[in-house]
Amino acid sequence: MQFEVTILGSNGAIPAFNRHPTSQVVTYNGSNYLIDCGEGTQLQMSKYAIKRGKLDHIFISHLHGDHYFGLIGLLTSFNLNYRTADLHLYGPTGLDEIMNVHFKYAETKLKYTIVFHELKADEPRIIFENRYFSVETIILKHRLPTTGFLFREKQPLRRIITEKIAEYGIPQLTIFDIKHGADFTTEDGRSIPNVELTREPNLPRSYAYCSDTIYHEAIIPQLNGIDLLYHESTFVDEHADRATETFHSTAKQAATIAKKAGAQKLLLGHFSARYEDLGMILNESRTVFSNSHLAIEGETFPVDIRKIDSI
Amino acid sequence: MQFEVTILGSNGAIPAFNRHPTSQVVTYNGSNYLIDCGEGTQLQMSKYAIKRGKLDHIFISHLHGDHYFGLIGLLTSFNLNYRTADLHLYGPTGLDEIMNVHFKYAETKLKYTIVFHELKADEPRIIFENRYFSVETIILKHRLPTTGFLFREKQPLRRIITEKIAEYGIPQLTIFDIKHGADFTTEDGRSIPNVELTREPNLPRSYAYCSDTIYHEAIIPQLNGIDLLYHESTFVDEHADRATETFHSTAKQAATIAKKAGAQKLLLGHFSARYEDLGMILNESRTVFSNSHLAIEGETFPVDIRKIDSI
Repeated sequence: MQFEVTILGSNGAIPAFNRHPTSQVVTYNGSNYLIDCGEGTQLQMSKYAIKRGKLDHIFISHLHGDHYFGLIGLLTSFNLNYRTADLHLYGPTGLDEIMNVHFKYAETKLKYTIVFHELKADEPRIIFENRYFSVETIILKHRLPTTGFLFREKQPLRRIITEKIAEYGIPQLTIFDIKHGADFTTEDGRSIPNVELTREPNLPRSYAYCSDTIYHEAIIPQLNGIDLLYHESTFVDEHADRATETFHSTAKQAATIAKKAGAQKLLLGHFSARYEDLGMILNESRTVFSNSHLAIEGETFPVDIRKIDSI
Repeated sequence: MQFEVTILGSNGAIPAFNRHPTSQVVTYNGSNYLIDCGEGTQLQMSKYAIKRGKLDHIFISHLHGDHYFGLIGLLTSFNLNYRTADLHLYGPTGLDEIMNVHFKYAETKLKYTIVFHELKADEPRIIFENRYFSVETIILKHRLPTTGFLFREKQPLRRIITEKIAEYGIPQLTIFDIKHGADFTTEDGRSIPNVELTREPNLPRSYAYCSDTIYHEAIIPQLNGIDLLYHESTFVDEHADRATETFHSTAKQAATIAKKAGAQKLLLGHFSARYEDLGMILNESRTVFSNSHLAIEGETFPVDIRKIDSI
């Protein structure tokens, strides 16, 4: 199943060096889920061919502008493009009020419904769920109430061994049950145990988005064994004091969270406008956690499938 | 004196074909005056090297998002960059309320003062004036209260003939008076009439910004003899009905306004997202007004000096 993250912007508060403010898209099985929506997000979506029609859920971490100033433009463009499908918007208290004051003065009459899900940054909660995965909040520590988002795949089904379908004449309608663990009874009454028909399912995968936050070990248990972790790394080590003052993290701190959580891979983002060259952020992170990568806009990072026997 | 217009964006409501929503900068004698501020304006300013430090006045025509959704980002970046100088913001009723609700939830404490000048779209008024030029509102006809902006140079001074300074030993401090029309008395008591020392001043120049508006002849007297006119031209003639329905103009209508106002040059902008190729907009305009040009982002259009003898 497709499960990947495309970066639309990963700069910190002020756009710099043609780097856009924060926004990214999680694509799961052809549907898009937008996380944060800094200024210019709708233009970045066009540039990187992210389909607006496949987007029904937008998650906003907090109300600093570099994480949501592009939202009103995107919501307005949906309307101008005659969207009718509901749009689910998850964000902090106040986000709906802000959008509504824009709409009021523009005399905008929405052709679609925005279903606003107000997020409280007090304790982790599951805020979205479908048959494949759930999204839960992560309680981050920043100057404003801020939540991260954890996309957690449900237990995938057992994987049927294709040759067995012909061998035992398994009807299409029965495959669903077998993937769920059922045995199969042949036409002549033989019972074939499930383990003979299927392989172990893949491990459920997970992706966590943590931005913005100071170094905050309280999130580690929730992130335990995460496949792909995006953690903000606004500063290099030299500016660790500045990170603490502004409730942000350094690259090494991001890497430490990844290491302590037993993450598979780390994406670094929310880069300060003071750094034109991001090499030092990457290098510092890799001294602590080798599988670190810069979240460069336009790049797509798959959440890799892990088989049980690969543990 | 430098007097020019740089286009940062000139697309209509929805960004398309990598064209940005409306924003432009009037630069006069090294200072910048921003007109409208669609999403992405601060990034476009960086791209085209428009200095934020030289910007103290922002004019917003109306509260459709493609004309101001970039404003909150720009105002926030000013703050993050430790701006302290006052920022004068001219715009419709409600613009201050919209900005303040953003600031409230971000807990932003501004380090500088935004002086908000509320614009009424009832009759033209002078809203800004310095020693060189004034800015007056133009009352446009759109779905929301909308004003254009007319930059009108004051009468330039007479132009001193350089050789006369040496010939008569004119002291530096006297030149100011001579440019204002004074005669000069030489050391030996001769009175030299001003006409012998100076040439006629250049004509005062003017630039008018008209967007968004339906075709509206009531603005023509105010635009009489305008040097450079930016007039929206959202549609081609084929979609004239759509222009009327949405209170926009066609290219030919923009050209007709330019022609009837006796404009020197016309800039066409606010292009509909339905046109990838803008050639037809330009061609249709030129059938009515030959000195028509597309307002392509990144391009700078000087308001040309006109000497009296060039009339």
